[in-house]
Amino acid sequence: MKTKAIFYHAGCPVCVDAEQGLAHSLDSNQFDLEVVHLGDNSSRLSEAKDNGIKSVPALLIDKQAFHINFGASLSDLS
Amino acid sequence: MKTKAIFYHAGCPVCVDAEQGLAHSLDSNQFDLEVVHLGDNSSRLSEAKDNGIKSVPALLIDKQAFHINFGASLSDLS
Repeated sequence: MKTKAIFYHAGCPVCVDAEQGLAHSLDSNQFDLEVVHLGDNSSRLSEAKDNGIKSVPALLIDKQAFHINFGASLSDLS
Repeated sequence: MKTKAIFYHAGCPVCVDAEQGLAHSLDSNQFDLEVVHLGDNSSRLSEAKDNGIKSVPALLIDKQAFHINFGASLSDLS
């Protein structure tokens, strides 16, 4: 069974680089990648926060939050 | 031909999490991953700096530096 990976972003340039350069570099045989735009899907903000996401872009893999560089703070999106 | 990916770290707990959870999750058919411990290999520090690495853990993929969470500043390792 594949592990779920969620890439949270907000459409910022730093986010786009991280999505293209890192999120889509994950082993697709191992991971099911979901890409969530927190600007467009503000209903997912509390889920992201509960998962330990503090800024975007970030990858959630196996319940671990990996913040990648810095695009925007989650508090600036809510 | 595979793309070179370099994971720079310093053996810190945040580094270990990022190595196991993220660096080794890259598609190994697509990437050749090199893991560099900058504490043990201080000769690689200037290379890391030239590649835009400012802190560890970080992944360098296709000349793009992705800083993952925060373990230690590069200046603290030199």
